[in-house]
Formats: sequence, structure tokens, C-alpha cells
Amino acid sequence: MSTIDLNCDMGESFGAYQLGHDESLMKHITSANIACGYHAGDPAVIRRTVRLCLDNGVAIGAHPGLPDMAGFGRRAMHITAEEAYEITVYQIGALWGFVRAEGAVLQHVKPHGALYNMASVDTSLSDAIAEAVYRIDPELILFGLAGSELVKAGSRKGLRVAGEVFADRTYRADGTLTPRTEANALLHDADTAANQVIGMVKEGMNSNQQDSRIHLKADTVCIHGDGPHALQFAVKIRARLEQASIAVRALRT
Amino acid sequence: MSTIDLNCDMGESFGAYQLGHDESLMKHITSANIACGYHAGDPAVIRRTVRLCLDNGVAIGAHPGLPDMAGFGRRAMHITAEEAYEITVYQIGALWGFVRAEGAVLQHVKPHGALYNMASVDTSLSDAIAEAVYRIDPELILFGLAGSELVKAGSRKGLRVAGEVFADRTYRADGTLTPRTEANALLHDADTAANQVIGMVKEGMNSNQQDSRIHLKADTVCIHGDGPHALQFAVKIRARLEQASIAVRALRT
Amino acid sequence: MSTIDLNCDMGESFGAYQLGHDESLMKHITSANIACGYHAGDPAVIRRTVRLCLDNGVAIGAHPGLPDMAGFGRRAMHITAEEAYEITVYQIGALWGFVRAEGAVLQHVKPHGALYNMASVDTSLSDAIAEAVYRIDPELILFGLAGSELVKAGSRKGLRVAGEVFADRTYRADGTLTPRTEANALLHDADTAANQVIGMVKEGMNSNQQDSRIHLKADTVCIHGDGPHALQFAVKIRARLEQASIAVRALRT
Amino acid sequence: MSTIDLNCDMGESFGAYQLGHDESLMKHITSANIACGYHAGDPAVIRRTVRLCLDNGVAIGAHPGLPDMAGFGRRAMHITAEEAYEITVYQIGALWGFVRAEGAVLQHVKPHGALYNMASVDTSLSDAIAEAVYRIDPELILFGLAGSELVKAGSRKGLRVAGEVFADRTYRADGTLTPRTEANALLHDADTAANQVIGMVKEGMNSNQQDSRIHLKADTVCIHGDGPHALQFAVKIRARLEQASIAVRALRT
Repeated sequence: MSTIDLNCDMGESFGAYQLGHDESLMKHITSANIACGYHAGDPAVIRRTVRLCLDNGVAIGAHPGLPDMAGFGRRAMHITAEEAYEITVYQIGALWGFVRAEGAVLQHVKPHGALYNMASVDTSLSDAIAEAVYRIDPELILFGLAGSELVKAGSRKGLRVAGEVFADRTYRADGTLTPRTEANALLHDADTAANQVIGMVKEGMNSNQQDSRIHLKADTVCIHGDGPHALQFAVKIRARLEQASIAVRALRT
Repeated sequence: MSTIDLNCDMGESFGAYQLGHDESLMKHITSANIACGYHAGDPAVIRRTVRLCLDNGVAIGAHPGLPDMAGFGRRAMHITAEEAYEITVYQIGALWGFVRAEGAVLQHVKPHGALYNMASVDTSLSDAIAEAVYRIDPELILFGLAGSELVKAGSRKGLRVAGEVFADRTYRADGTLTPRTEANALLHDADTAANQVIGMVKEGMNSNQQDSRIHLKADTVCIHGDGPHALQFAVKIRARLEQASIAVRALRT
Repeated sequence: MSTIDLNCDMGESFGAYQLGHDESLMKHITSANIACGYHAGDPAVIRRTVRLCLDNGVAIGAHPGLPDMAGFGRRAMHITAEEAYEITVYQIGALWGFVRAEGAVLQHVKPHGALYNMASVDTSLSDAIAEAVYRIDPELILFGLAGSELVKAGSRKGLRVAGEVFADRTYRADGTLTPRTEANALLHDADTAANQVIGMVKEGMNSNQQDSRIHLKADTVCIHGDGPHALQFAVKIRARLEQASIAVRALRT
Repeated sequence: MSTIDLNCDMGESFGAYQLGHDESLMKHITSANIACGYHAGDPAVIRRTVRLCLDNGVAIGAHPGLPDMAGFGRRAMHITAEEAYEITVYQIGALWGFVRAEGAVLQHVKPHGALYNMASVDTSLSDAIAEAVYRIDPELILFGLAGSELVKAGSRKGLRVAGEVFADRTYRADGTLTPRTEANALLHDADTAANQVIGMVKEGMNSNQQDSRIHLKADTVCIHGDGPHALQFAVKIRARLEQASIAVRALRT
């Protein structure tokens, strides 16, 4: 039986600022990527989010980002591999503190935003991140864009990796995501999105852009937590996956 | 045979900013309190400082502070007990990441600056900090001002605690430090300072302010890392302690 | 004819974080206090908010706060008078940059949150803030809690001051606000709030807590921008004031 | 008679962190670029540095940088032109507050580090910065790398610009700086540096790398404030310039 993990970015509120729909979405996902205080989140939010994960049986992951709260970690910064290693260790550690304080276990690490994108194509950054994850705990699972340099770096290092696909994004013939600047980059219909995911989990993938079929290993699906239809979308995707006899569950179970 | 630990605040540099004399002082102390990025320090500095500790056989401690880099964590902030718990967990965790990445062990936690002072007298803050330390690792040793609410809170919680005394500060008849605003608050002579420390380690303490003797348990002595004579002072204190047949060593050995 | 100014805190969004209902509220107020990037706000938000003020004919004020984004400037910090002066100059200047860039004029300065509260009772802080305002531009109006040390400091310095009252807060017999920790601290009914404001503008004030009448000069009324009923409340207050033949307009007109 | 301005980055200390030799260097320069709190500096440092300029008759400039204190504004960030405009307005304004509070005048704006480098080659960023400077005060002088997109953008906008050259850096045949990664990028000898500067002020420039002569207009020379020989270097350069009958003075005099 095929299985898939549904992950979602969580804990992105900060101080007086609320963001996302963590409480309602938490019921429909299997893994949470918790912001660690660099691009979003703060100690109070992390604590609350870790507990929310535990209450809902959702596996916990660290979601380290660039040190750029004003830019939400979405602006590329020219950091060195050393700096990538250091900010990753720092943020995983900070989250681990709360996980440990609750007697829980950390399942995975998924870099955020520009750090994720940079590590998808830059070998020195992806190696540095894989090294950070490995040195903190070789049992941690490294999440990265399916087929990217990040998952390759994780595999090289000896880490278990999870190739991530996006339910609501279209893919190009070479397996990369259609840039958001292009038309048809986004799938707005939950059914179409579900079909794409089912294809990626069960066999390969049906590129709806060029009608060619390319192989893309999907271990975990990213569910977006923002937007007005985030919850509906998550519910629909999960239901369709289960109807297709795909077991929806966290990776470390 | 009496024993004593010599601790020093370390890793207080930040980005392009250098502070302290970590490399030279590291040779003369037994425990380092490493800044965790809130009042001072950054991931690169933490990494470097953890390695420096390991190279010198110095025990590693977390030095969590208030989130106030501009004020170096020295300005009191009205935080809640919840917030004290949360920032303590976050910072210990962040430092732990680097300790773990180097295959090392965390010995202790010593709050910094205003957080240390506030926790010395405020039971709810000291309980929150002790709770944070305990929940992350009940084997951690909590450093606090000898006789303060912080060490009492640690003991209540079941933590091993270490009463800290200051080599270069004078004490009042009630066992509290002479405020820096008063004359004679500071001891400038290393020999006088050493005598005071030897007294506190071996028996009780000879209050040089009121010539009364008060009891003050000294488990660890704070060596200041800044100032032009920091190194000289440290060397002298250590030599005098060893001459007095006091073993100078870290607490978790 | 009596006149009154209606002010509201604005520009408190930050990066990806949205806060408040600036666009809709802007139509109903006469003065905006714009966050300056310390407790809330960022350069993009400031720019947008300054323009929004100009589009709606709303007078612009600086809303400097403590350097504590995580605490939204609501946590008291033990800063010196020098530091109060410096952070006030910095923040007024930063906002002024955008006001100047749009060819507009800065009307007033109103400290935020804990800085406002601290300056209401601490003479050295209030003098420092008044000094900062005066040195940047002696034509600026200083907003402070009616009857507080802050307005007194402004007057001493030679600044025009505006005594601020709160529509939705009750007052005690000595003219201070009923602390939020007490019952009846808040007025939930817009009509009752409007009556209180009308009393404060037209004559003195009807303390609804002790049924004694105390004098309290109201130059500007703070309208809260958050909460589900903020807009409704603002509309109602303004309508009632106008019905009572009180002219609602900014102070520098 | 030829004239030249000598500028130096100043006010880069932060909180407990001291950087540079502002007091001693201030006696030998004519224009100071004061950090505005984003890549370095804080309100207390800015205030102190503005006063130091006034005490020494040094012209005051804003030195806006990227919002990256940990990286000292030296790491390129992919910011939009809008963001470049906004952070420039914010920082000039913040510094202006202190200049105004001291009754002084702002002479110029010189972007810092990665922002300077990015604006040297990116037209949209340089236009945004020139727009920010112009809208705050069209009398401000924009400092940029001689021959760069930044000075061109300033000229297009109608600003007075100043082409900056570096005393201790070598140039390539195309007029760009030899990258620091190459050998001979730096001039360590003050006399050689002085000769290069004199050449650039009086005629064109003698490229010591390729022995070709290229034209490069020098309006202001950057004197580095860090390094063990900064002071000596500044003294020597200034003396040599004056011996060569070049008047050393600020631009707005």
C-alpha cells in the first residue's frame, strides 16, 4: 500500500501578530514544519505549536530560515556554507529545546523559503545543511524539493530524506516547478491538485503543463497554510488520497 | 580537599564585533557561560566558542539573557514567568544544538545580566527558569547567585545547583552584593579578591565591608572576562586558590 | 464651538504580518499615530500608511515605542532618560523621512505602550521625550495621557500638548484610568463611551466609577484600532460627537 | 586649485560593542558617513557621533545599509527597488533626527557595503536610492563609486553627486576595483596610496595594475577606519594631498 505524508508550515505567528490557521489545519496533516524564530515564530509561538502538534498526533519538524523577519525569510541572502550550517544548527537546537521540554521527539528538518530554494540548487549550501542536520541527530529526516540538490546532499550524508512535492503547483517537463511568474503555475482546483499528487505517489507524475510524464518521487506533500481556502484544500486532498487507498501518515512512525 | 569551579562569560562577540578575551582566558577557567544570541553572541560565535571550550577542556554552560542586544541584556524588562520559561528553553536549545553537533555535553545554565538579577529575587521568574532547565535535562546544573531565589528554585525543582560568588565584588552583612553605586563595591586587588574567595570556599565568608562573618556557600566563582586586567586577575586568583590546596575544577567531572 | 481630535494607532503591520484595519478606520479619524519600526511597523508599512493618511486628510504623528517587537512595546524596560531621548529622536526622524518624502508635514508625537505609560509617571523619562520632540521641531504637538507627567513635561518645555482621553476606558476618582485588571475597566457600549467623551470635551468628566465629577481636559480621543468592533465604535463615537455640536478635527489645522 | 574630500565610515559601534577609532580619525577627515542602525550603529552611537562631527567640523552624511546587523550589511540580499527606497528613506530620516536635534545640517548620503555594491551595478536599485535621497532633500549629495550606476542615477535625478575613490585599493583597466580575492587588490603603503589619489584628483588615474592610464573623477576619497594602521594611513594621505597643493575639504562648504 502506498503511503504519503502531508506537511504544512506552522508556528509562523510572532508576538502580537497572528498568521495562519494552525489549530484547524493541524487536524488534517501528519507533519508540521515549525518556524524557529529567524524568519517567523518566537519562543511562545514555538511552545504553543509543539503542544498543538502533540495534541493532534502530528510529527514535529524544524523549519529553519534566513535571519530576515521583515522579509519572512523569502529574500535570498548571499550567505556562506559556514553560515548556512550555523543558522541551521542554531534553529534546530532552539526548536529541539521545546520538543525535549515536552518529552517529544523531533522527526524532520525542512529549510524555509529562500534558504530552501537556495539549497535546492547550491551544492555547498545543501551539503552544509545536511551536515548540520546529521551532526545534531543522524536519525532526523531531511525534507527537500523532490529531485533537488538538498535531498541529494542528505542522501550523500547518510540521512533519510523525503522528497517534497507541492499539491497546488504545476511542474515543468524537467521536473522543476513552474515559476510563479508564469501562467498556470498554480492549481486552483483541489481535485486537479489531488490527481497530480496521487499520480506522484502511485507511479511517476503527469506533468499537466507539457503532457509528458516524468518521474518524481513524492514522500511528502506540502499543504499551504495560508490563503482563504487552505483548510478546504487540505481536507479535500487528504480525502482524495485516502479514497485512492494511499495511507496518509507521518514518516517516522 | 575543597574544590571550586571558575566560570567566565564567553562568546559575547557578535557579527563584526569582538568582545572579551576568550582565547586567553579559556586556559584559566573551568566552566564557560556561552551567550546564546539574545543579549550577545550569534551562531558563528557560539560554534567557535563551543570548540574553544572543548579544545581547552572547559565545561560548557548556556548563558541565556533577555532579548535585548542593544542593551546587552542588562536592562530589566517586565517579562512574565511564561516568557522567562520560553526564552530560557529557546536559548538553551540553541546552544545545545552546537554542543550536540560537536559530540559534547552541556554542563550548566547560568542566566545573564538583568535576567540573573531578576531571578535572584523574583520567585516566579526563578521557578520558571528552573522549570525550563529541568524539562530540557534534569542533569543540568543551575548556576545562580549564592543564597538567591534562583538557587532555591533550582533545589526545589530537584536540580543540582551551584552557588556563585564574585571574586571582585564585596558583600554586605546580609550576604548580598554591595551595589556598584556604592564605594568599595569592587575589589581591585587580586590578592584581596583571592582571600575573599578562599574564605568563601573553605569556611564561610569574611565580609570585608562590615567585618562580620556570614555564611555563603561558594560552588563556583565568576571571573570577569572584560576589563584590561581580566586575564591577570584570573591567573592570580587561580594560582592563589591552588596554593591554598583548593582543587580548581568544573562541577560535572 | 468645542472641538476634538480623534486619534488612532496605525501602521502596526510588519513584513508578512497584517494588523489592524487602517484603511477603513482612516475615514473616521483625524490624527494617526504611526508606528516607527521599534515596537511595530517597518519602512514599507510606514510609507504606505503615510500615503493613506494623506489620501484621507488625516494628520500624521510619530508613535515611537520601546525596542521590543516581540513584546509589541508593551513590556516595561528600565531604560535611562538618555536612552528615552535617543530612541525617540531616532523614531521621529525615521518617520519624518517618509513624511518629508511625500511633501507632507508631521503634526504630533505620541509615545506607545509601555513607553507612554512609563512617561506618564516618570518625570525624567517624560522630560527626555519632550526634549527629543522639541529639538527635532518645536512646532510638534506632544500627545500624552490627560493630566500626566508627559503633558506636564511638554508644557514645561514649551511644546503645545494634547491631553488624551480614552473613549472605551473608565476613570477613577483621581483622574487615572481604571486598571485593566479591575472589573469595569472597559466600556463596551459605544453610547456610554460617547457620553463620557462628550462630557470630557464639553465640561469636565463624569467618572462613571465613583459618580464623582473630576476635571479632565480632553484634546484628543484615542480610538482603538483593533478588536472586532473597532470600526463600528469609531463611527458611532464620531457621529455622537458631531450630533453634540463638537467639531471633530485634527489639532494642527 | 584642486580640492578633495576625505570621508570615513563612522558610528559603527553598537550597544556594548566598540568598533573603529572615531575620535582620533575625526581630526583628519572632512566628511563622516554615519551608520544608521541597520547594519551597525544605534541611537546612542548616532547621537554621540553627530556631536563628534560637529566638534571637529566634519560634514555629516547618512550611511544606510541592509537590515543585517549580524552580517554587518556586507551580505547581498535580493531586495526590490521599492525596498531599497524604503530602507534608505527610513535610515536617512533616523539620522536626520539627530542632525536636526543638534541644529546641524546633513551633507550627503553614501550607501554601505552590499547596498553600495549592488547599487553600483543595478540601475533599478540605484534609481530607487537616488529617488529616496532626492525626495528627502534635493540638496543632499549622493556619494557613490566613481563611474558607477549609483552616481549616474544621482545625476539623472538632478542630485549633486560625488565620485568616490579608494586610497588603498587598486583599480583595473576598466576603472573597476580589483576584487579583494585577487593579489595586489590592496595597497599597503601609504605613499603609493597617496600617489594614486593625487593622480586621480589632479588628472586621471595611473592604474598600477596594468600600467594603463584611465580617467576616473575623484570627488571624495574613502579612508578606512578599521585596521591597525588606519590612523597613520589617514594622516599620511592627508599630508601628502596638502603637500601636492590639493585643498582637503568637505563638499558642502
